[in-house]
Amino acid sequence: MKLWDKGYTIEKAVEVFTVGNDRELDLHLAKYDVLGSLAHAQMLHHISLLSDDELTGIERELKAILQQIEQDSFIIEADFEDVHSKVEHILTERLGETGKKIHTARSRNDQVLVDLHLFAKSELDEVKSLVAQLFDRLIQLSEQHQHILLPGYTHLQVAMPSSFGLWFGAYAEALIDDVHLLNAAYKIADQNPLGSAAGYGSSFPINRTFTTEKLGFSTLKYNSVAAQMSRGKLERSISFGLASVASTLSKLAMDVCLYMSQNFGFVTFPDHLTTGSSIMPHKKNPDVFELVRAKCNKIQALPAELIMVTNNLPSGYHRDLQILKESLFSGIFTLKSCLEITEFMLQHIRINEKAIDDPKYDYLYSVEAVNNEVMNGLSFREAYQKVGKSIAGGNYNPNKQVNHTHEGSIGNLCIEEIRRKMEESLVLSR
Amino acid sequence: MKLWDKGYTIEKAVEVFTVGNDRELDLHLAKYDVLGSLAHAQMLHHISLLSDDELTGIERELKAILQQIEQDSFIIEADFEDVHSKVEHILTERLGETGKKIHTARSRNDQVLVDLHLFAKSELDEVKSLVAQLFDRLIQLSEQHQHILLPGYTHLQVAMPSSFGLWFGAYAEALIDDVHLLNAAYKIADQNPLGSAAGYGSSFPINRTFTTEKLGFSTLKYNSVAAQMSRGKLERSISFGLASVASTLSKLAMDVCLYMSQNFGFVTFPDHLTTGSSIMPHKKNPDVFELVRAKCNKIQALPAELIMVTNNLPSGYHRDLQILKESLFSGIFTLKSCLEITEFMLQHIRINEKAIDDPKYDYLYSVEAVNNEVMNGLSFREAYQKVGKSIAGGNYNPNKQVNHTHEGSIGNLCIEEIRRKMEESLVLSR
Amino acid sequence: MKLWDKGYTIEKAVEVFTVGNDRELDLHLAKYDVLGSLAHAQMLHHISLLSDDELTGIERELKAILQQIEQDSFIIEADFEDVHSKVEHILTERLGETGKKIHTARSRNDQVLVDLHLFAKSELDEVKSLVAQLFDRLIQLSEQHQHILLPGYTHLQVAMPSSFGLWFGAYAEALIDDVHLLNAAYKIADQNPLGSAAGYGSSFPINRTFTTEKLGFSTLKYNSVAAQMSRGKLERSISFGLASVASTLSKLAMDVCLYMSQNFGFVTFPDHLTTGSSIMPHKKNPDVFELVRAKCNKIQALPAELIMVTNNLPSGYHRDLQILKESLFSGIFTLKSCLEITEFMLQHIRINEKAIDDPKYDYLYSVEAVNNEVMNGLSFREAYQKVGKSIAGGNYNPNKQVNHTHEGSIGNLCIEEIRRKMEESLVLSR
Amino acid sequence: MKLWDKGYTIEKAVEVFTVGNDRELDLHLAKYDVLGSLAHAQMLHHISLLSDDELTGIERELKAILQQIEQDSFIIEADFEDVHSKVEHILTERLGETGKKIHTARSRNDQVLVDLHLFAKSELDEVKSLVAQLFDRLIQLSEQHQHILLPGYTHLQVAMPSSFGLWFGAYAEALIDDVHLLNAAYKIADQNPLGSAAGYGSSFPINRTFTTEKLGFSTLKYNSVAAQMSRGKLERSISFGLASVASTLSKLAMDVCLYMSQNFGFVTFPDHLTTGSSIMPHKKNPDVFELVRAKCNKIQALPAELIMVTNNLPSGYHRDLQILKESLFSGIFTLKSCLEITEFMLQHIRINEKAIDDPKYDYLYSVEAVNNEVMNGLSFREAYQKVGKSIAGGNYNPNKQVNHTHEGSIGNLCIEEIRRKMEESLVLSR
Repeated sequence: MKLWDKGYTIEKAVEVFTVGNDRELDLHLAKYDVLGSLAHAQMLHHISLLSDDELTGIERELKAILQQIEQDSFIIEADFEDVHSKVEHILTERLGETGKKIHTARSRNDQVLVDLHLFAKSELDEVKSLVAQLFDRLIQLSEQHQHILLPGYTHLQVAMPSSFGLWFGAYAEALIDDVHLLNAAYKIADQNPLGSAAGYGSSFPINRTFTTEKLGFSTLKYNSVAAQMSRGKLERSISFGLASVASTLSKLAMDVCLYMSQNFGFVTFPDHLTTGSSIMPHKKNPDVFELVRAKCNKIQALPAELIMVTNNLPSGYHRDLQILKESLFSGIFTLKSCLEITEFMLQHIRINEKAIDDPKYDYLYSVEAVNNEVMNGLSFREAYQKVGKSIAGGNYNPNKQVNHTHEGSIGNLCIEEIRRKMEESLVLSR
Repeated sequence: MKLWDKGYTIEKAVEVFTVGNDRELDLHLAKYDVLGSLAHAQMLHHISLLSDDELTGIERELKAILQQIEQDSFIIEADFEDVHSKVEHILTERLGETGKKIHTARSRNDQVLVDLHLFAKSELDEVKSLVAQLFDRLIQLSEQHQHILLPGYTHLQVAMPSSFGLWFGAYAEALIDDVHLLNAAYKIADQNPLGSAAGYGSSFPINRTFTTEKLGFSTLKYNSVAAQMSRGKLERSISFGLASVASTLSKLAMDVCLYMSQNFGFVTFPDHLTTGSSIMPHKKNPDVFELVRAKCNKIQALPAELIMVTNNLPSGYHRDLQILKESLFSGIFTLKSCLEITEFMLQHIRINEKAIDDPKYDYLYSVEAVNNEVMNGLSFREAYQKVGKSIAGGNYNPNKQVNHTHEGSIGNLCIEEIRRKMEESLVLSR
Repeated sequence: MKLWDKGYTIEKAVEVFTVGNDRELDLHLAKYDVLGSLAHAQMLHHISLLSDDELTGIERELKAILQQIEQDSFIIEADFEDVHSKVEHILTERLGETGKKIHTARSRNDQVLVDLHLFAKSELDEVKSLVAQLFDRLIQLSEQHQHILLPGYTHLQVAMPSSFGLWFGAYAEALIDDVHLLNAAYKIADQNPLGSAAGYGSSFPINRTFTTEKLGFSTLKYNSVAAQMSRGKLERSISFGLASVASTLSKLAMDVCLYMSQNFGFVTFPDHLTTGSSIMPHKKNPDVFELVRAKCNKIQALPAELIMVTNNLPSGYHRDLQILKESLFSGIFTLKSCLEITEFMLQHIRINEKAIDDPKYDYLYSVEAVNNEVMNGLSFREAYQKVGKSIAGGNYNPNKQVNHTHEGSIGNLCIEEIRRKMEESLVLSR
Repeated sequence: MKLWDKGYTIEKAVEVFTVGNDRELDLHLAKYDVLGSLAHAQMLHHISLLSDDELTGIERELKAILQQIEQDSFIIEADFEDVHSKVEHILTERLGETGKKIHTARSRNDQVLVDLHLFAKSELDEVKSLVAQLFDRLIQLSEQHQHILLPGYTHLQVAMPSSFGLWFGAYAEALIDDVHLLNAAYKIADQNPLGSAAGYGSSFPINRTFTTEKLGFSTLKYNSVAAQMSRGKLERSISFGLASVASTLSKLAMDVCLYMSQNFGFVTFPDHLTTGSSIMPHKKNPDVFELVRAKCNKIQALPAELIMVTNNLPSGYHRDLQILKESLFSGIFTLKSCLEITEFMLQHIRINEKAIDDPKYDYLYSVEAVNNEVMNGLSFREAYQKVGKSIAGGNYNPNKQVNHTHEGSIGNLCIEEIRRKMEESLVLSR
């Protein structure tokens, strides 16, 4: 039951190749496909292309399908190539000619476009909500461990005193930047493409403002050709937001894997959350964080993948665009699971309060010593030479009292300010 | 004169390898380096680490350097490894010990960070301004040629009537999406990292809010570790915005190259803007658009490049980050030149008003014919069969009067609405 | 039943996240896992770590599993995290302690390595065989249509006479380059990593040369750390070969999509292999080629994806490497299906013998005209001016007899030489 | 003096945009351009299109240019858009009409193609030679330090005994895989494209076998369209080889940066090859290796960049291809400098012979202990429990005598076999 069926027997090989895993992927769009159809039907009724009775019938059946979807009992059998043909089939089976009328002034092109835009808005909201939960966990850990020092590295060399407060808080604040990119993607998604038909509009006197309001879009993607062009552009824009969150998670995971190594020993996790060996009692493999890192690095490859598929295609619909769904969906779902598991793991993180006491970290405080001499009136050069001499002479005795007070330093984490910045960014795309 | 000079003769090979082309690249940062130093000096004076006289001297010399930079007479000689050491050298030469005091409570790490953030804000503003100019040109062309029809393609197959109005207007509206991503990058840039020192803050009682206001940042990147982490993250975020604009330009260029082919013949340009041959009079090579396409495709590879360099690096400064400057700067400058030349070329575009008259486009109107029958009361199936029959029977006579009225269609381009949407998006990051 | 099970209840969330879709993916490795285990058991017997009876039992059970795999009845239930634990479970269930002995001097790390190397060799052979079939088809079409002219384009501008012979033959010859990269990947795969254990060898006196011969590897990856490092490197190397083939297919698909457009009309396919519409009788959507193009472009993103996941990981095993399987397998299987469907479609391609007759292609022959004058004694400048004048004066009359004779030109396709080059490259990695 | 000059004044903006930095880049091609012209002239003489005198003159002037190039005194002034127009200008200035005859049966398209193929062969040879030098250094270090143990990590967790012999030797053997990919690229380069003209051959009776022999190519890229298609494909193939070498260097650099950290302390370098601070005497920043890592990671982005520029371009020349030169050249030159500096640094590496003595590495030997019990007759389970019990009871006493004997293990590095494998791979592309 293909929409473009025209009497010929399509070679089976061609069908298998072209349909691919669309049936499975389209289940994620089903809800939005029905919502889009509902709004479209109501608009057709509004402009008198559907009668009251016709609309009533269509609404009833679409709502029945919606219920099925929400109960996870909606399926797309092998007879159908995608969700659109399945829904059309149900309507026609139950309503006859009326069921077909829903395709008036609509093409599969703008139908899948509106599905993707609605899906994107919903998923971006979920991603932002998971980002907010991880942010809260990181802020909580930052506050909880704000007084515990940690060596700070530059060039992977022991350099300056840092703290668990700074470390956890840094990843929290970094997530705010990621939200800005998610917001941009949301704004790009939040424009109604429905009514652009096959990409060039139609001769029917449709009312696109009506469906825009019904579907809760903030504005229209006005130009029909621009609406069609948003296929590909939308996916790429979302991928930038996903890649940004993923880069933050991946870096955090890299830190955790390093800090769990016996060579650092800064953090650890309970046995039931790691893998190990009873003959190597110190060995705790950070499998979860290695996989968070790997999966998030793969997500960071998503923009390149989407660009390679869509690049240098002239304007207008191409079947190539179908291929983007799998990459995009998989990227979104994987990122969500990475956000969840990271937050879950961080609930159980155990930090080593004594890490800093190892003598190899004694030189951490030498910059402090120089600075203190400067504050006490020596020139920087004199102070530097004085501390250098005491170290060279073996007389250096680190003062491990760290007293940093400026905004964003160990002693002044500005957690409230960071929290406020996140709150502002979270509401920004509305 | 390296900042980390410590008495040893660094092997020449190592120096050449590590300094690379930093001197040349840093010229683009020089202005911001001086502005950052000015604000930092004023802050040091504010917290009494510089005397009135010291500040006066430093301000005088920094402003002299700034003037040199603005007159393009500032140079970084081979004796210096970067802009920071050159500026420090001038100050020390002219002010003695006072010149060195500017390094109190600052590291090269937060110095280059603040340079990059200021540079990014300025460049993003310029890019947005060029985007706005191209938008205006496209809107003007869309309005000017709104009544000229063009074949619309799906699958590169002749499909539906389109128009020059739709085509130009589509690229204009697509640019709005790109501005959303530029805005996100701007917001990420618009946070003051100065004061994070080597990435872990310092023991000096500096006032970061003071420099934030002096430098015109909207907020601080509070957490010092987060500030250091913005190196890499900032560049990647900008690259997403650049890649987004580039994808729009590249697609437009692909369309132009295709439409200039003798097989389409939809647009052309005056001889002095193309290359050709007197023995092939119809040949007009679209070199400019081919290079816009190629350069913009290269810009679209920028995110992948930046990700590959920064990925899996644990937190804290690494020298690797130096390498990002060249990629980022080149991406920005190239995109600006592509925006400029595209707008310049479009000033001279000539469109073929008769393109649509070729008989191969007659079937363009068959969907219209079906829709008209539907509007006149036939069911879609009946209308479709009727038109199909007339085509099969050779009786099909296309009615080339296209009457589309809905929002974003050929007859209703919504130029005002699109213009307003762009205006709103342009101010959004402020 | 995890190999690393150690008495704790691993949180379900962690298990789901870490196991991922490994069970499904590992079915593709099952055959090689058993073959690797067989060779390993025989080697253990050879060095007297297994008795005759123990080997007999292990061989019997492994061969039974192998038969199951070949009959597609082997499954990995949800109780097992991967193929290795499933096979171990069967052996232990059936052979008791003997079943466990197969893990002597082996780690899951070198076990999956040898599986992947054997899998890679087999798959690369299959890819090469499909490339050879497509090559044969292209060569046959090149020969069949060698006399049919086609416009040749530069800058998408009509430029010079070409031919279907040249066009089909070009893609055939391009495939030879791809085979060189597949061969390189094959050579990289064709080195036995078994015996490297967890990446650092073991204290057992194993005989790696023995398993190398048993498994049909040409050589060993000697150094145990290098063997472990081949995880990631192998996948990337294969991806280069896949991407190279994919680039050739994608370009061919782009040409076909363009040439099927009404604006070119050079090739077409029977109705049952395209999609269309009875009200637009000329519309034939090249869905298969659009999807070949898209899927092959996605495959070209595979190197970037694999690089991003593995980049900047220090030496030694990391769980991250697990993630590569899905990307690699999917790339290989998709490329194979693209090679098959392309060859299938080309069996049915119909070419337009009259394409060249359109008057817009008349200037194609002007370069020929100039060359002929040169061959007849005029200087190039004189010849050029003469032809230019005749065109400007409207007296140009194209001589459509194309007489090209040099190697690789329209009249001398060198099909035999190209065929020989392909044959040589196909055997090269052996 | 543009080749396509046709009497119009090309707008300056267009010229600047289109010529770009070609003059600078083309200096690297100048030598090959002249060599290609020499072979072409000799072939034209061979088929009687040049007289003896004409050939003598052309040869004399081309050899004079070649000498200039070799003396670094050849320049391309701003009057010329590339090397081709500059060389043509010299010939015409000195030889009049004869100088122009060299363009008979040639186009700039096959001219730059043959330049690039010759350049690629030469550069790939140089890269392979530098790889061989680095290989030798690594092998020497592996032999020299073969008895010094090092902790071996899995999951960044201390896992098994390794050695400097294994570590250095692993990178040596990994380079062999990279050579296979360089060889594939070499084979792809080693095919003569000259004579394909603008991509469709020509009507002149040229002898391409003649130029193939003169220029030292192993074979022809026969099909003229395939020859044109090699533009882009050649660059991509080379980039795969470069990226492969780069991945090995990058991983080695990551290990070095980690091992230089105070948290590992396995290797170090003399002060004059690192940067540091006298107040942090243990701090030795591995700047060179950080930049090797970064530059090599950027090189690994080269395939994606080249793919994005060339993807979805239909067959035939496009000006886009010009853009590839800069990316390719920069990738090659950067990789060569990274190979050189890495070999240079490794000459000075200092290893910590006592690293393994730290008590945190005691559990390294527990697997050995289990294996030894197995070799002495216990079942694996019994041995494992016995060792586990001794560790849990605090009675574990590591036996630090590591006795590994199998191929590729600590005690049997197989250096000779690895050396032989490299030698075989180095000659393979000839």
